[in-house]
Amino acid sequence: MNTASNSETTVGVFGLGSMGFGMAASAHNAGFSVYGFDPNVKAIQQFVDLGGKQASPDDIARTLDVVVVVVVNAAQTETVLVGDAGILKNMKSGSTVIACATVPPEFAKRMEAHCHEFGIHYLDAPISGGSVKAAAGLLTVMASGSADAFNGARPVLGALAEKVFELGDHAGPGSAMKVVNQLLAGVHIAAAAEAITFGISQGIEASQCVDVISQCAGTSWMFENRGPHIAQGDYTPHSSVEIFVKDLGIVSDIARQSRFAAPIAATALQQFVAASGMGFGGEDDSAVAKVYAAQANLDLPEGDTK
Amino acid sequence: MNTASNSETTVGVFGLGSMGFGMAASAHNAGFSVYGFDPNVKAIQQFVDLGGKQASPDDIARTLDVVVVVVVNAAQTETVLVGDAGILKNMKSGSTVIACATVPPEFAKRMEAHCHEFGIHYLDAPISGGSVKAAAGLLTVMASGSADAFNGARPVLGALAEKVFELGDHAGPGSAMKVVNQLLAGVHIAAAAEAITFGISQGIEASQCVDVISQCAGTSWMFENRGPHIAQGDYTPHSSVEIFVKDLGIVSDIARQSRFAAPIAATALQQFVAASGMGFGGEDDSAVAKVYAAQANLDLPEGDTK
Repeated sequence: MNTASNSETTVGVFGLGSMGFGMAASAHNAGFSVYGFDPNVKAIQQFVDLGGKQASPDDIARTLDVVVVVVVNAAQTETVLVGDAGILKNMKSGSTVIACATVPPEFAKRMEAHCHEFGIHYLDAPISGGSVKAAAGLLTVMASGSADAFNGARPVLGALAEKVFELGDHAGPGSAMKVVNQLLAGVHIAAAAEAITFGISQGIEASQCVDVISQCAGTSWMFENRGPHIAQGDYTPHSSVEIFVKDLGIVSDIARQSRFAAPIAATALQQFVAASGMGFGGEDDSAVAKVYAAQANLDLPEGDTK
Repeated sequence: MNTASNSETTVGVFGLGSMGFGMAASAHNAGFSVYGFDPNVKAIQQFVDLGGKQASPDDIARTLDVVVVVVVNAAQTETVLVGDAGILKNMKSGSTVIACATVPPEFAKRMEAHCHEFGIHYLDAPISGGSVKAAAGLLTVMASGSADAFNGARPVLGALAEKVFELGDHAGPGSAMKVVNQLLAGVHIAAAAEAITFGISQGIEASQCVDVISQCAGTSWMFENRGPHIAQGDYTPHSSVEIFVKDLGIVSDIARQSRFAAPIAATALQQFVAASGMGFGGEDDSAVAKVYAAQANLDLPEGDTK
């Protein structure tokens, strides 16, 4: 990484949540001149404490070479980019937007068109890997966009990601691949919860279930990552139940519009909706296990009560 | 492995299908004196061609130290062991049965009790790993049973398995863990099919989907194993659709009896039932993708038509 030349590139990161904060820090650590933006002033202050910069978006929009948008959904992405408060109208021609939220592919295409009106390159660039990898600059990016968009984004992506899949020369395929990934991720979390609680109903301890199945053909990335949360009774939200209410909602919306019947994703979505309805929306997504436990009158392992 | 002492141990393998044949061969290769039994005389002849032995079960039952039952289901296991044609009544006291089919835990407990009537040890020992690992002696075994059952089975298990989980001192927990594994395995295969065909509906090629998702948080053991079958259009049955009609059927039966709501497993089961109903029951279980493709009027990748 060339920190000397990176310092000449000014980056704005919109969204300093669990993913965005780590990404902003990774870009800062790689030597870029990074501004952090978030409605939460505490998050901005934390970033400034690390050596990051803060400013009013309007004041420094024209100096930004790359804008990374790491917000929760399509609506927030649109708010950041377009409309009265949007930044696009103040950005310079030839700059690049890297859009990382999980959004419908059609939305990504629409944002790309907006950017093109201002001569701005748009990279459809959803991310995978979680907050730990975000902070380490080791994300996976499912990207699609023009050659100019890739060229503009590449130095910053190099600081954020271990792996960048280049999936096409226009916006859409990146978001489509991310939606496919979220279908599987959501189903696998709910299936892990279903399997572990089913095991409890058959007399198998959750921790033994996680140990054994992790080494068998029934395992998944999510089973190995979220299973221990259930076995340890630790629902500290690394990624919350609400994220999958949203992302499996996107899957279901797109599938319905495409006349694609996706019954397993639809069923998993209902389990996350139920978890949220029971009051666990802000807990770790593995709290979907509480739906199964409640419906079968089972006790889940309890965490340390320090 | 001590092939000299192994030669003094006589083993009968009941069921020379895709799993049993490889297991019989592994036991033979480890130096055991192995008889193969199967209604399919071609399978027996193939085993004899490898150096295995054949005989009438009644003639050699009293010489068997270990009987390995690797049949399709509980009904076949019961036929092999009990009743007029069952082998238990002719086996010697102190010998050991290793029961490998995926069966309900209650069934395993009942078979254990039958064996005890004859002074025979019973190891509840479902297997995971597929036919390639069976042939290489590298299976995973989820085992439970008495200390005597483990002692009787251990030398033979050493030839068949890379890993033996010891899950309890009586029959039941082994089968329960296997059923939990099959819940996940079946859901993950159907989810892989759902995700890959959904991706096709969004313009993503199946092979690209498999390549990318295998490196993302949406991956699973089954996605990585079965995804390429769909991407290559190769439905040669390594494990057939009917296996998951059966195994997810066992999951659903046990869950219902336990008043455990398992909606994702139930939904996945319907997809395998539909695949079988469409005529694909004998194809590889990844042919569940054909249900999704038919319901969305999509073309799946075609295999080589040599």
